[in-house]
Amino acid sequence: MDAISVIRAKRDRGELTGEQIDWIIDAYTRGVVADEQMSALAMAVYLNGMTRSEISRWTAAMIASGERMDFSALPRPTADKHSTGGVGDKITLPLAPLVAACGAAVPQLSGRGLGHTGGTLDKLESIPGWRASLSNTEMMDVLRDVGSVICAAGDGLAPADKRLYALRDVTGTVESLPLIASSIMSKKIAEGTGALVLDVKAGSGAFMKNAEDARELAATMVELGADHGVRTVALLTDMNTPLGLTAGNALEVRESVEVLAGGGPADVVELTVALAREMLDAAGLPDADPAKALADGSAMDVWREMVTAQGGDADAELPWARERHVVTAATSGVLTRLDAYAVGLSAWRLGAGRARKEDPVQAGAGIQLHARPGDHITAGAPLLTLHTDTPGAFAYAEAALEDAIEIGPAESYASTPLILDRVG
Amino acid sequence: MDAISVIRAKRDRGELTGEQIDWIIDAYTRGVVADEQMSALAMAVYLNGMTRSEISRWTAAMIASGERMDFSALPRPTADKHSTGGVGDKITLPLAPLVAACGAAVPQLSGRGLGHTGGTLDKLESIPGWRASLSNTEMMDVLRDVGSVICAAGDGLAPADKRLYALRDVTGTVESLPLIASSIMSKKIAEGTGALVLDVKAGSGAFMKNAEDARELAATMVELGADHGVRTVALLTDMNTPLGLTAGNALEVRESVEVLAGGGPADVVELTVALAREMLDAAGLPDADPAKALADGSAMDVWREMVTAQGGDADAELPWARERHVVTAATSGVLTRLDAYAVGLSAWRLGAGRARKEDPVQAGAGIQLHARPGDHITAGAPLLTLHTDTPGAFAYAEAALEDAIEIGPAESYASTPLILDRVG
Repeated sequence: MDAISVIRAKRDRGELTGEQIDWIIDAYTRGVVADEQMSALAMAVYLNGMTRSEISRWTAAMIASGERMDFSALPRPTADKHSTGGVGDKITLPLAPLVAACGAAVPQLSGRGLGHTGGTLDKLESIPGWRASLSNTEMMDVLRDVGSVICAAGDGLAPADKRLYALRDVTGTVESLPLIASSIMSKKIAEGTGALVLDVKAGSGAFMKNAEDARELAATMVELGADHGVRTVALLTDMNTPLGLTAGNALEVRESVEVLAGGGPADVVELTVALAREMLDAAGLPDADPAKALADGSAMDVWREMVTAQGGDADAELPWARERHVVTAATSGVLTRLDAYAVGLSAWRLGAGRARKEDPVQAGAGIQLHARPGDHITAGAPLLTLHTDTPGAFAYAEAALEDAIEIGPAESYASTPLILDRVG
Repeated sequence: MDAISVIRAKRDRGELTGEQIDWIIDAYTRGVVADEQMSALAMAVYLNGMTRSEISRWTAAMIASGERMDFSALPRPTADKHSTGGVGDKITLPLAPLVAACGAAVPQLSGRGLGHTGGTLDKLESIPGWRASLSNTEMMDVLRDVGSVICAAGDGLAPADKRLYALRDVTGTVESLPLIASSIMSKKIAEGTGALVLDVKAGSGAFMKNAEDARELAATMVELGADHGVRTVALLTDMNTPLGLTAGNALEVRESVEVLAGGGPADVVELTVALAREMLDAAGLPDADPAKALADGSAMDVWREMVTAQGGDADAELPWARERHVVTAATSGVLTRLDAYAVGLSAWRLGAGRARKEDPVQAGAGIQLHARPGDHITAGAPLLTLHTDTPGAFAYAEAALEDAIEIGPAESYASTPLILDRVG
C-alpha cells in the first residue's frame, strides 16, 4: 500500500477500498503519509466525492486513530448536541444545563471559533475564572456532580481528524460533504455519547448555503451515527438570519442567561427547547419537560453549578467592549433581510472572532441587533450596535454590512420557519 | 492575494487570473506557499484543467522564477530537442552530435530517469569518466568548441518547476496535460535555445497512452514555444513498442554508437534523421544533410569530441552486467506485439532504472531485443536477453513481461508507422 496509489484511485473517480482507507488514515496519523499527499487526496475527495460506505469507513478509521471515551459507568443516559455552526449560535449554553436539569448527562466537548462563526469555548471564557481545559477526571467529576459539562476536547480523541481539519483549513478543502460529515461524526462518536442530536444549519451564515446540501449532510451524519451505535437525529434549521439578538462572546452569554431565566429572544428559546426534546427523546427520557425546566429555574440552577464547578464566577459582571457605534435605519419600512454571514463577518472584524487558531478574541466585541426580519422600523432608528475594544475596526466592520440590510414594503417580506425539517 | 483563494478559484472550475498565477508561482518558489497548498492546487488543475492562456502564463511564471540562458553570442544557431520519454529512447545520443556536425549548436540539458523510462544522463554515465555536471562556463566552452553538449540542467533554471515536479511525483498529479506542458516548456525555454523540436510519444510506454492526448500536448507545447519566441515543431511518434533493440544504460550507448557508425536499427536511424532535419530546418539550416553526416563519419567525430570534452573515454569498453537470462519464444509465428511499457518495467526491475531520485542505477542492466513486431520466429528461438548484476531480479523482471509478448499468424499483424504526425 502506498499514498500515491490511494490518491490516484480517488483522482480517477474510483471507490477506495476499506483497506486503502484504514491504511491512509493510520499512515497519516503516524506521519508516514505527508501533508502534501493528504491535501491532494482531500482535493480529489472534494471534487470526486465519496460513497456512503467510503465515508463510513473513513469515519471509523478516524475514530480508531485515538481513544474513545466511555460514559457507561454514569447513572444517567448521555446525550450530546452538535451544531454545524452559524452566527449568534449560543444554543449550547442554555441547552446543556437544561437537558441536565431534565435528567440526562450532557458531556459537551466543544471547540473554538474560526472565521465568521463563534466558538462555544470562546463565549464561556468571557465569564471571569471559567476554565475550558479539564482533565478527563475533572470532566467526569463535573458531569457526575452537575449533570452537564462544556469543555475542550482532549488531544487523544480522533487525532487524525485534528490533523486533517487543520490541513483542510489551509488547502481550500473545507466545504466537502464527506469530509465535513466524517470530521464531525468521528469526534462526536469518539466522545462516547449514547445519543446525539445534530443541528444542521442552512443559509448564508452556514457552511451549507442551501437546504438541499444541508439535508444530504444531515442524512449522511445520521447514518454514520447509526453505523456506530449512537442514536442520532438531526434538525435542519435556518441560518440566513443570525440566531437571537446578539453575535459576540460576552454578548451571547448574557442572552443565554436571559433564556435560562425564562426570557430571551423567541427564536433562541424555540430552538433550545426543540433540541432539548430531541436529546431527551434520544436518551430515553421522552416524558421530561424542558419548557418547564426553563420556567421553574431548575435549568438556571444547573447552569450556575456548572459554571462554578469549572472555576467561573456565575455572579460576576461580564465584560463590555470599550467602544460602541450604532447603525441606524436609512429608511422606514419592514426589515426584510438581515444577512447572517455579513453580521458574522462584521462581528469577526470587530474582534469577536479570529483569523488564525493562535489569535486572541475580545470578550466584549460583537453586535447587538435591535430589530429582526419582519419588524417595522422608522428611518433613523437604531438597527445594530457594534461593540469593540479597537475603534479603528468600525469602518471595516460596517463595510461588511453593506448590502446585508434590506428595508422594504411589508408585502415584500415572507417569514420562514426556523426549524425546516427533521432527519432521523 | 492568498493561496486559499487561488486554490478555491481553480477548485470551483474558474480561470485563474494572470496575477493569481504570477503570485502563486513566485510565492511557492519563495516558500510562502506550502507544499500542501500547491499539491491541492495541482490536483484541482489535474481534475479541472487549465485554458491555453492559463498554461501560457503559468509557463512564463515558472521561467521567471529563475535565470534564462543566452546563447546569442555563439556563432551558430542553436537547436534543442525534447522527448516526452519512452522505452529505449536513446535518440539524444546520436542526434546531438549529428545536428552539430551539420552546423547547428545543440545545448542539450537533460535529466535522469525515474520509473520505467530511462534518463539520458544515466545512459551517458555508463561511459568511464564521463561527467554530467558542468559549470555554465564549461558547458559554453564544450558547446563552442565541439558544437554539442549533453549535461545536467543547473539549479538556476526554472526552480519553481523543479520543486513542483518533485511534488507532483509524490502526490499523484504527474499525468496532467497543463502541468506536463508547462513543466517541459518552462525548462526548455529557460535553457535559451532558439529552435526546439519536440518528440511527443504516444502509446503504452509513454505518458500519453493515446495519439489524441499526445496531439493535444504537442499542440499546446508548440504554442507555448511560439509565445516565447522559440521556433517549435513537434513530431508525434509511436511508443507502443520499444525504440530500437535495447533498453538499458550501456546497452543503449552501444546502439547509439552503431547508429553514429552508419549502422544500427532502422527505427532509431529513421527517427534520428527525421528529428535532425526538423532541428536544422528550425535553426535556419534547411540544406544540411544529416543522412550524409551519419554515413561519412562526421557525426561520429563530433560524438567522440563531445564525450572526450566531458571527461569520458570514447574508446573504453562499456560495462556489461554480471548475469544474463534468455527469454525464448513459446511458439512459432509472427511477433505481433512487444509491449513497450512491459519492457521498460522489466528493465527497471533488472536495475536499469530507479524508483526514487536518490537510488543508483546499474550501468550494464537492461534488455536486448532479438526480434521486433513483424518478425517471423521459431519456437525456442531467443526473443529477449535480460541483463543484471542482481540475479535475484530475473523472476521479478520476467513477471513484468507476462502478457507483453504476442506471437500469432502473419495476418494478425498490422504494421504501424513510427512517425504518426507533425505539429508545427
